[in-house]
Amino acid sequence: MRAVLLAAGEGKRLRPYFDRPKPLVRLLGLALIERNILSLRECGINDFIIITGCYAEEIKDYLGSGEKFGVKIKYLHNPDWKLGNGVSAYTFQQDYRQEEKFILMMSDHIFEVDLLKDFIAEAKNLKPDELLLAADSRLENIFDLDECTKVKARQNYALQLGKELNDFNAVDCGLFIGTGSLLEALSNSIAKEAYALTDAVNLLAKEGKVKLHFIKHNWFDVDDYQSYKEGEKILLQSLIPPKDGFISKVINRKFSIRITKFLTPTGITPNQITFLSFLTALASAIFFALGNPFIGGILAQLTSILDGVDGEIARLKFLRSDFGEIFDSILDRYGDFLIVIGMAFSWYQHTGQTVALLISAAALIGIPMSMLFKEKFRNVFGKQFIPEFNDGITRYFPANRDGRLFIIMLGGIFNLLPASLTILAVITHLQTFYRLYNVRKLTSAE
Amino acid sequence: MRAVLLAAGEGKRLRPYFDRPKPLVRLLGLALIERNILSLRECGINDFIIITGCYAEEIKDYLGSGEKFGVKIKYLHNPDWKLGNGVSAYTFQQDYRQEEKFILMMSDHIFEVDLLKDFIAEAKNLKPDELLLAADSRLENIFDLDECTKVKARQNYALQLGKELNDFNAVDCGLFIGTGSLLEALSNSIAKEAYALTDAVNLLAKEGKVKLHFIKHNWFDVDDYQSYKEGEKILLQSLIPPKDGFISKVINRKFSIRITKFLTPTGITPNQITFLSFLTALASAIFFALGNPFIGGILAQLTSILDGVDGEIARLKFLRSDFGEIFDSILDRYGDFLIVIGMAFSWYQHTGQTVALLISAAALIGIPMSMLFKEKFRNVFGKQFIPEFNDGITRYFPANRDGRLFIIMLGGIFNLLPASLTILAVITHLQTFYRLYNVRKLTSAE
Repeated sequence: MRAVLLAAGEGKRLRPYFDRPKPLVRLLGLALIERNILSLRECGINDFIIITGCYAEEIKDYLGSGEKFGVKIKYLHNPDWKLGNGVSAYTFQQDYRQEEKFILMMSDHIFEVDLLKDFIAEAKNLKPDELLLAADSRLENIFDLDECTKVKARQNYALQLGKELNDFNAVDCGLFIGTGSLLEALSNSIAKEAYALTDAVNLLAKEGKVKLHFIKHNWFDVDDYQSYKEGEKILLQSLIPPKDGFISKVINRKFSIRITKFLTPTGITPNQITFLSFLTALASAIFFALGNPFIGGILAQLTSILDGVDGEIARLKFLRSDFGEIFDSILDRYGDFLIVIGMAFSWYQHTGQTVALLISAAALIGIPMSMLFKEKFRNVFGKQFIPEFNDGITRYFPANRDGRLFIIMLGGIFNLLPASLTILAVITHLQTFYRLYNVRKLTSAE
Repeated sequence: MRAVLLAAGEGKRLRPYFDRPKPLVRLLGLALIERNILSLRECGINDFIIITGCYAEEIKDYLGSGEKFGVKIKYLHNPDWKLGNGVSAYTFQQDYRQEEKFILMMSDHIFEVDLLKDFIAEAKNLKPDELLLAADSRLENIFDLDECTKVKARQNYALQLGKELNDFNAVDCGLFIGTGSLLEALSNSIAKEAYALTDAVNLLAKEGKVKLHFIKHNWFDVDDYQSYKEGEKILLQSLIPPKDGFISKVINRKFSIRITKFLTPTGITPNQITFLSFLTALASAIFFALGNPFIGGILAQLTSILDGVDGEIARLKFLRSDFGEIFDSILDRYGDFLIVIGMAFSWYQHTGQTVALLISAAALIGIPMSMLFKEKFRNVFGKQFIPEFNDGITRYFPANRDGRLFIIMLGGIFNLLPASLTILAVITHLQTFYRLYNVRKLTSAE
């Protein structure tokens, strides 16, 4: 499927805050239209038509042929962009291929990738003369309802649309899957000097041809500086994975999200953050070994926080890579090992107790067990190991990385290294034994 | 697809050596017919017809309804089994369902599972009136050519079959996929008092309806005591995975295969062997720690050998389980850890050098890296990590388990624990770094 992005408008309200056209305004490291292209690429869309108008040259210069994004971009120019966005949408008529279904999208509306995936999946149920419109019925969550185009719906068909509608139950997200009938409706409404896209959609709505897809994920429309800042918040929140560890959710993400926000405008890559996180682990180990557990503990927690940042930046800027995933898990293990060795060194140096060595060794070998088990589980069963579901009572053990580094941090700042190492040694192994027992139970029940 | 197993004959030549009917003769822990049922079950066949004759009651008593194998077994009796195996095969006529394709197999011919899988996959290319016959054209490998039914083939169709054929280029493996036309041919040949299955197959061959599938894996036909012993060898050799480590191939398998052969008649399970292997690792660690590195080293090598036995028994007796796979990898890691800790304890106790602790810690954290990397690789790329292909020069490092335990054994018997631990510390990490570098190279080339 091809995607048509409307990028012809002037974007007056945002202009005073940025020295560039609205589609090129950078939000968390990516221009608005760039984020849309990359989001759609994640959904398998590789062929783009961009309708330009007001700042045609700037947009072309910035995006080029699409090669740098691994997609194909074609530009169509609408000299009459001032008339309205219906005229811009109708410009696509030049390139429309008989019976084609196409995505039509405003370049300044931003959607979560999962929203786009769900929406595109709906296309296969669309009749050849219908229009699919993404609509949001969660009215209590809409940021600036006044600005939105409202939709009066009956079941999943639109009856009427308009900004001034009083009786409505959803809002128009500015995301469509169109067929030839949309271009026809545009042609008809333009002939009647009604130049807004909504005018054409209303024509189709009257004929009962505007099917609605009620979205479940987040989106936002960058209209002014206020909605720009609000969008930033929504995108940052979307980076937190639903299956996050307890410490990660309650502590680390509060910091990592801020660091990510700070770093996105720079060119720093996720792998560089991964390495930085390894360096803070190394520094933590050195401080522990040199007898400064307070700083060691703080650095361990910083390691844990930075461990979230690489993934956040990767998701935010579409920089995820297979190598990055492996690099991250191996370097994380090395970081953990170094910290425990630093702590063990300190404990043993101060006391000379053999028990320090034994407990440290137990902690050292317990650390990789969680990852070993999870990866093996996934390979054997072909599905992810989910601690919340599979770990029973031990899911409350801080035996995953966020929990382990938190125990280390506490041990550091309260100068309780023996206690911290002992806890690590006990919980990591207990969790492993419990997991074995549990898998045994699960498989013998089959 | 249903499978028809012929188990009606008397099996005279094997009778003096065993106190039971031939299909029930145990070969490496399983009765011949039981192995066939389990092999076919691995190929997705769950519905069996067993044609009985001479020892009908014994066979029924042994196999029952098939429930204990997780399959359905139906018995058809051929009172005239003495006439020939064509009459036994024709007994299936009673239960034949219009247009059905079915597997027809001698209960005393044993095939590698991969052979059966390839063969069954060919069924979809078979025309409705053809017969598919597994044939072996590797005549130099046939154990007892005199005993075999020869096949004269033109391309992949049989022209003629017979024991006394002089001009032939393959032998009949006694494995068929039949259609209604086979039953028709059987009926015709029996009418002419030709009672052997080969007689009916020859009728079809004359009409150009016997398609051949040339096999690539091992099989054997248990005719007499000699071929029984030969079959044992073939089965045991088939247990060695093609991608075995160097030490495993050259040393361990020589012993593990013998141990497996010895253990198959007992009821010992693969998981029990896994646990036993963990116990020998524990014993090795204790001997190292108590200052007896020679015994410690030998026990480490024994651990390595037993590490092969669990898998061999699982494959040989169809006892592979998801839990077993996870249990094995987790317990192996614990075993390795314990041995290294035992060695480290001994080294440090004798010398008091801090370097002993540091090198031992490095070895300890290097050990799980190989598995961590491989499992993660498989999850990220969705394919197995193959050291021979992906490890470049480091594939010659003894950094996989068989190599590591061999280094430990050498360190033990020559009393060179520091050297042994240093090598382990160096190669495990070098290999991990190389693997990271290599994946980076591979993914950036894409």
